[in-house]
Amino acid sequence: MNHNFQVPEIGAEVFIERGQTEQEIDTLFCQLKNNGMTITRIRLFEPYMRTADGQWDFSLFDRAFAAGDKYGIKIYGNLFPDTSFEDVGGFKFPRDNAHFASIREYIKNVVPHFSLFKSCVGWVPINEIGSGSLPKDEFTQKRFEDWKEATISDKSSRSGGYEHLDFAEDRFLWEYNTWYLEWLCDEIRKYNPDARLHVNGHALFNSIKEYDFPKWRRFLSIFGGSAHASWHFGNFERDRYSIAMSATSEIIRSGAGNLPWFMTEIQGGNNIFSALAPLCPTAEEIAQWLWIILFSEAKGAMFWCLNPRASGFEAGEWAMLNYQYQPSDRMIAASGVIKTVNQNASLFSNLKEEESGLNILYVRETMWVENKLNISSPITSYQGRSAGAGINSSLAYFEALCEMGIQCNFKEICEFDFLKDDYTGVTIILSQQVAIPRDYNEKLIGFVAKGGRLIMDGLSDYYDENAICQWMHVHPLAQILGGSIKEYKMRDDLFPIKFSDPNLSLSAHLWQGSIERSTGVPISGDSHSVYAVKNNFGKGMVVWVPTPLGLGAWVSKNFEDLSQFILHYVFIGKNSLRFEYYQKGLLMKTVKAGNATLTMIVNKSPDNREVQIINNEKLHPEVIFSNKGGMVKSDVVKIASEETLIVVWN
Amino acid sequence: MNHNFQVPEIGAEVFIERGQTEQEIDTLFCQLKNNGMTITRIRLFEPYMRTADGQWDFSLFDRAFAAGDKYGIKIYGNLFPDTSFEDVGGFKFPRDNAHFASIREYIKNVVPHFSLFKSCVGWVPINEIGSGSLPKDEFTQKRFEDWKEATISDKSSRSGGYEHLDFAEDRFLWEYNTWYLEWLCDEIRKYNPDARLHVNGHALFNSIKEYDFPKWRRFLSIFGGSAHASWHFGNFERDRYSIAMSATSEIIRSGAGNLPWFMTEIQGGNNIFSALAPLCPTAEEIAQWLWIILFSEAKGAMFWCLNPRASGFEAGEWAMLNYQYQPSDRMIAASGVIKTVNQNASLFSNLKEEESGLNILYVRETMWVENKLNISSPITSYQGRSAGAGINSSLAYFEALCEMGIQCNFKEICEFDFLKDDYTGVTIILSQQVAIPRDYNEKLIGFVAKGGRLIMDGLSDYYDENAICQWMHVHPLAQILGGSIKEYKMRDDLFPIKFSDPNLSLSAHLWQGSIERSTGVPISGDSHSVYAVKNNFGKGMVVWVPTPLGLGAWVSKNFEDLSQFILHYVFIGKNSLRFEYYQKGLLMKTVKAGNATLTMIVNKSPDNREVQIINNEKLHPEVIFSNKGGMVKSDVVKIASEETLIVVWN
Amino acid sequence: MNHNFQVPEIGAEVFIERGQTEQEIDTLFCQLKNNGMTITRIRLFEPYMRTADGQWDFSLFDRAFAAGDKYGIKIYGNLFPDTSFEDVGGFKFPRDNAHFASIREYIKNVVPHFSLFKSCVGWVPINEIGSGSLPKDEFTQKRFEDWKEATISDKSSRSGGYEHLDFAEDRFLWEYNTWYLEWLCDEIRKYNPDARLHVNGHALFNSIKEYDFPKWRRFLSIFGGSAHASWHFGNFERDRYSIAMSATSEIIRSGAGNLPWFMTEIQGGNNIFSALAPLCPTAEEIAQWLWIILFSEAKGAMFWCLNPRASGFEAGEWAMLNYQYQPSDRMIAASGVIKTVNQNASLFSNLKEEESGLNILYVRETMWVENKLNISSPITSYQGRSAGAGINSSLAYFEALCEMGIQCNFKEICEFDFLKDDYTGVTIILSQQVAIPRDYNEKLIGFVAKGGRLIMDGLSDYYDENAICQWMHVHPLAQILGGSIKEYKMRDDLFPIKFSDPNLSLSAHLWQGSIERSTGVPISGDSHSVYAVKNNFGKGMVVWVPTPLGLGAWVSKNFEDLSQFILHYVFIGKNSLRFEYYQKGLLMKTVKAGNATLTMIVNKSPDNREVQIINNEKLHPEVIFSNKGGMVKSDVVKIASEETLIVVWN
Repeated sequence: MNHNFQVPEIGAEVFIERGQTEQEIDTLFCQLKNNGMTITRIRLFEPYMRTADGQWDFSLFDRAFAAGDKYGIKIYGNLFPDTSFEDVGGFKFPRDNAHFASIREYIKNVVPHFSLFKSCVGWVPINEIGSGSLPKDEFTQKRFEDWKEATISDKSSRSGGYEHLDFAEDRFLWEYNTWYLEWLCDEIRKYNPDARLHVNGHALFNSIKEYDFPKWRRFLSIFGGSAHASWHFGNFERDRYSIAMSATSEIIRSGAGNLPWFMTEIQGGNNIFSALAPLCPTAEEIAQWLWIILFSEAKGAMFWCLNPRASGFEAGEWAMLNYQYQPSDRMIAASGVIKTVNQNASLFSNLKEEESGLNILYVRETMWVENKLNISSPITSYQGRSAGAGINSSLAYFEALCEMGIQCNFKEICEFDFLKDDYTGVTIILSQQVAIPRDYNEKLIGFVAKGGRLIMDGLSDYYDENAICQWMHVHPLAQILGGSIKEYKMRDDLFPIKFSDPNLSLSAHLWQGSIERSTGVPISGDSHSVYAVKNNFGKGMVVWVPTPLGLGAWVSKNFEDLSQFILHYVFIGKNSLRFEYYQKGLLMKTVKAGNATLTMIVNKSPDNREVQIINNEKLHPEVIFSNKGGMVKSDVVKIASEETLIVVWN
Repeated sequence: MNHNFQVPEIGAEVFIERGQTEQEIDTLFCQLKNNGMTITRIRLFEPYMRTADGQWDFSLFDRAFAAGDKYGIKIYGNLFPDTSFEDVGGFKFPRDNAHFASIREYIKNVVPHFSLFKSCVGWVPINEIGSGSLPKDEFTQKRFEDWKEATISDKSSRSGGYEHLDFAEDRFLWEYNTWYLEWLCDEIRKYNPDARLHVNGHALFNSIKEYDFPKWRRFLSIFGGSAHASWHFGNFERDRYSIAMSATSEIIRSGAGNLPWFMTEIQGGNNIFSALAPLCPTAEEIAQWLWIILFSEAKGAMFWCLNPRASGFEAGEWAMLNYQYQPSDRMIAASGVIKTVNQNASLFSNLKEEESGLNILYVRETMWVENKLNISSPITSYQGRSAGAGINSSLAYFEALCEMGIQCNFKEICEFDFLKDDYTGVTIILSQQVAIPRDYNEKLIGFVAKGGRLIMDGLSDYYDENAICQWMHVHPLAQILGGSIKEYKMRDDLFPIKFSDPNLSLSAHLWQGSIERSTGVPISGDSHSVYAVKNNFGKGMVVWVPTPLGLGAWVSKNFEDLSQFILHYVFIGKNSLRFEYYQKGLLMKTVKAGNATLTMIVNKSPDNREVQIINNEKLHPEVIFSNKGGMVKSDVVKIASEETLIVVWN
Repeated sequence: MNHNFQVPEIGAEVFIERGQTEQEIDTLFCQLKNNGMTITRIRLFEPYMRTADGQWDFSLFDRAFAAGDKYGIKIYGNLFPDTSFEDVGGFKFPRDNAHFASIREYIKNVVPHFSLFKSCVGWVPINEIGSGSLPKDEFTQKRFEDWKEATISDKSSRSGGYEHLDFAEDRFLWEYNTWYLEWLCDEIRKYNPDARLHVNGHALFNSIKEYDFPKWRRFLSIFGGSAHASWHFGNFERDRYSIAMSATSEIIRSGAGNLPWFMTEIQGGNNIFSALAPLCPTAEEIAQWLWIILFSEAKGAMFWCLNPRASGFEAGEWAMLNYQYQPSDRMIAASGVIKTVNQNASLFSNLKEEESGLNILYVRETMWVENKLNISSPITSYQGRSAGAGINSSLAYFEALCEMGIQCNFKEICEFDFLKDDYTGVTIILSQQVAIPRDYNEKLIGFVAKGGRLIMDGLSDYYDENAICQWMHVHPLAQILGGSIKEYKMRDDLFPIKFSDPNLSLSAHLWQGSIERSTGVPISGDSHSVYAVKNNFGKGMVVWVPTPLGLGAWVSKNFEDLSQFILHYVFIGKNSLRFEYYQKGLLMKTVKAGNATLTMIVNKSPDNREVQIINNEKLHPEVIFSNKGGMVKSDVVKIASEETLIVVWN
């Protein structure tokens, strides 16, 4: 299978429901074409393909695929076997054997039928994979029992002789998602072997604990995800949604590895009663989101959805077209981005993110352990004790780097390549990753020995994957950390931590670790206690601050002090272009396109801004997109509030 | 049956429990009489009429009815078949067939026995009808299954071909309450055909979604309700309880139609551990509540309760008498109102509310749809997305009108008479009634065509009764609205909306609709967008503001701006007497009694006030009740904080 | 059995888990000894004594007891029959008959085995007795049914003929805990008749409703309790934890009667994810807590725990040793206290609290009634309507007395000795004890008649033990109160109540009772109403304020005004030493040791303080412990913030 992904493909999901006329459906596809869109996705609801007596009747969706053919729109068919009308997102696993068989039957009928249409380019085997928790039904529990029998041998031998908490359910769910997804892909390929296979994760900051991206590379053609502000960005204020969109994109990009990816669902319109936060994206946000996704190497993007559905939850909501099926200001904004992309097709066909050598790594097992240990307290509520602390702490570093204009990878630790010979210029940041599987200790030691730099903050590596505290004996990383923990002590929600450099002082969160030094050189502390060390090891170096700095920034919403810490301790030489100073509310991403360098700058602050760019190679800027009059002159960017600027540097 | 309701009957429920002596019971009835009270209600607890071996022993309640006879008190027997002692309000439906039979048996024994007493004037078949949600027991579920089989045919054909959400449970519960109530009435009438039959709804702002008042008129003699500040007025601050009491009264009055009504339960005393908000009504509040109820055409009122009960939830709470069975200040206040009523018996025997032509209509299906679509969000909480938004939005208009001194009907849409030939001078307000059954579209068009004025705000008529979005195609009301919606956009919790008239600007809530105009004349908007129109149609006119104004007032607690909107767009000519300006914290109700006009004015503001009355007919005022020295001179009312004034104008 | 408790025994629990080496275990016991500690407790986890094929293998714990022998540490074995690894505190009752038998079998094997070690001095039959609510399993429910059959006769005859709410579950749980504890003790004594038997209650401010301390005296040798700041002091801010510790100690001391007691668990270190509030005790707090416990006549104290456990919930948390098994600053602080105790062994071997004659009595049935009547309201939340109001109200008096430097007993009413002939100089405080069993009325009347003084505030004795309101008829205490209640009225969360003495004015909470006086002399009120009376009766006197003063202080956190009330109305002459004025943030406890008087003073305020002591007997002070340079000169105490001073007066 060789799927060509040239110029990014931008589109919106056409929502097809029983009750629509042929004329309506034609209009919808016509509007896609008129606005420059080239792809769509369609939910293939089984009940709408069934007659009263249970026979197959594909006519409703045939009209859609025919319209796709007519207007040259590429369609991804989203499998949607029969489920309750009130099931908004679709079921995630079979309920029982009969249900399992009926899914197979659905695929056997639906896939060969629609794959005959020219417009049918691929399939989404399941919508928004990821169930949150393990279903209690018999089908799943039987498989879980079988799995436990097959995989759990003598558990007490597995963590240094200690009995330990049980993470079987988390681990099984993680594998089970992959099993089901692969089974669906296999079934589809029986009937349509050359189709693109694509799936969209959702609520990624939480659901990534269920996903095994590297395994998915074996059977998907192109990765994807849902990134809805109303549903998924609840940890961010609205003026930080661009950070959330950027991080979501980086998570999928890393998961995809060498495979392409595109953003499957982006909120396209106003939501009224549905979703967790009501909002209507502005035209400016639509442009920001699209450009952020494209600058994360995406091969495309689709909005949810083109047209308002008439019935059910979400009726009349979420659409890019208004009730008259005319383009909204959001659709016009998307169309403007498409136009710029098409006019610069050669640039945008082969973007590669600039590789800064910076890697924020999150750890799946940290999320499992946080969930297990999380206690619901009626009297206190601290970010550091809440599920999600590890990912939020990592996002704090990501946010600081975005506002410094510096590229950064955001990877699950298993997605990082530990097999290289030289890590000179490469940094790993492990921020409040409380649980790290034992297998990674050797890898991290090797990384540093071979020239890498490791920044580790908070309670990172406090537990192993079985929630055994690693500080009871010699810690597996002690040699590279340059010391051991004496004690952690709870301090306060926010408290200051000072570094030896008098200009460096941050707000930290909740706990402070004191260090029993070996080879580490103190960089924070006093005559009684050492609170941070740096330690040379092999060709590399470790900066270890066993106090949550990322969470300190996250809770205080002060990312500037964290950026100072980064400037002190992280390799940042590799970035060709960046802001001279930290810029609150600004976001810059840099990509390479052949010889050209492209930067995207977004201004989420309420003010128009003038910003100096560090441009060591003296490249010459050319603005190819601005939507509020922004410009670049002598390395100074002028950018209006909410504007997005795309600049080509040669 | 011809039940004479002359001078309003005011009383309090005597709480009879096992353990009371004959002397105690006699004292209680004596106190009713001493304080001018003429009616009571008694809960006829089955366990207190049963001997240890299960025989009937009516002696405890016989003492009460005998005391009723002795002191000339009219008694309503409240059926209370056996239930758990901890069941405070009584069960709402039979649990199973045996239970159903035992209720029949209870009635068969209890009703004929007590109906022999002269004091026994009527029955309350069930206390506080309305169960909140459909019980899961077998008895109910069996009936629900039968009902579904009988009523649901081909549902997809019912809403323009669209599949839709399922409201069967709401619809069935609504019918089921009526079925059970009618069955109880039928059983009672078997043994006491001439009795007054009365029932009290409760928590009306929520429970009205379960009630079918027009059907109840077939078998009730007199309507009723519970209106407890501690239980039912949670959406209001204490200084707005008078508004809540007035709205509750109007809901029941409208429900009763041509039948009489009285308020069955009003909080009479201090609650300690029971109910949702602890409070002790003041003497002034007791007077306010009684007068508000009487000025809503009530034929009477009863307090819950006369005497503190000794045992169970509510022990020692809620009473009008103190622990020495002496009158509290609240009882004395009630007695003062009774005295005024009796001294002006001819006036109060036949009050009719002044008909202003103003009708706030709420829609049952809006409540069903709100409940179905309501999503529990951990990150946002907006009034507009919460269950109850529609009723609160309507109450905002009601509150503004109260504070303007203008009478207003408050009706479920099915209680409005759409069959007249001329609606000149009549206004309907539909405020944030998101779901309106399709059958009403023709009726509303006819209403406007025949001279009516329709004020419609917010997302009213967004959905039909099946939650199908009506804006997808030509909206059924498009011709009278003078346009269609392009889009709704979420704005903010509160945001300003300006009208063409430079003096008119309001705080609106959450969403703003923009209009694709046809015949409508813009009254709000700018060069890009139209936010409100007025549209002449037939002999009438529509003012359409597809942005929540009522909720804007409700959330901001600013009813003055809304009153300005009303002054601009509503017919208000019919009101004989009203405040010259909007009066924050004041409430005026106007009734006719023969040739006389009576006004009640309540001052809930913390200040003594002087207020100018518009009195176009130059009527002459006479104060017949004031409890803090208030007076009326030259159309200026002087009224103290918390005072109630009753004025007769001739 | 004669157990010698001489010099207080101070220690920490060694946490033994599978995976530890013999060397590690030896080190732990060595550290106990090195730091002066003499006792420990060990959880004897059944799974760690079982081989794969189910045989007993005691070797892991044998190493611990052998180390105990080696270092001279006394060990309490804490029975811990098999339970889920995720069950942090252990099960509270058998689940079924097989489980019950397995517990018997566990004891039969474990107790005789370890009792052979010299170090084994006693047993804790169950960890943290008290289950919160009655388990729903078959074993318990069967016993509950049997119990109901056996104990509930004609309930309606029991409360003056009134039917009433059902408290069978509360009463049974209370007895059932005692039954199970006694059964465990009996089983242990079969194999080790001379062992000390000890049990630790927990979360006492809530769990005391389940405990029958006087009955426990029959089969325990020494009482105990857990007092963890992170778990149990949630009603207090951190700078009031010393009050919480003092009250917890007094509750256990009273429960123990003439038996000795020690504090079984005190938080020893930092908690991260576990418990309701994260914190790390300071060295100063460790000293404060130990001294407070010792000045409450404790025969010892143990920290939870010595060493961090490696696995499970609490992994790496709570420890007195750091991860290198070296003493933390907290361990060093404890060691300092131990040293002072040992250096003054004769003084500390036989402390007796100074008896001030002051008794705050709480009533178990008040807690049962509060729980039953408590209603979850979405709109209001008042302390007075919440479960726990009675205990918090009592704690407010306790806190005021602590800050006056006055000793006070804190007893369940059944623990007070009502059988004396003369109560001159004795005061009982009943604060917001809403439910008092009828049996106590006679006792309280006798107490006053014989010279006692009764202070009663709030809604105390509103209900009897069946939640029957006692004010409906002549109240059983009417003669000693000097009047009856007319009405309670809800006022406000906080409102002022003035007394006749112009200097006395307090913030009260929620309700105000007005009094129908008989013999009582008004001490608060106006021309209309009497709000408080004092009443001479027999040789004694009653001060009755039917308005919550304790809760007023608790909610407003103003204990100074309450101290003024106490000064006015309570006998305080008996205290040899106390603060001249109320001292916000200070705490003083006074004990007798032979002829000497010892005072402990703690300063929880943020400031260094100078305080005048009332020292009528002109005793001479000698400071034997100070940890921040404090001193006493001319009856003036100088004490630094967070310091603890121990002073011997001769």
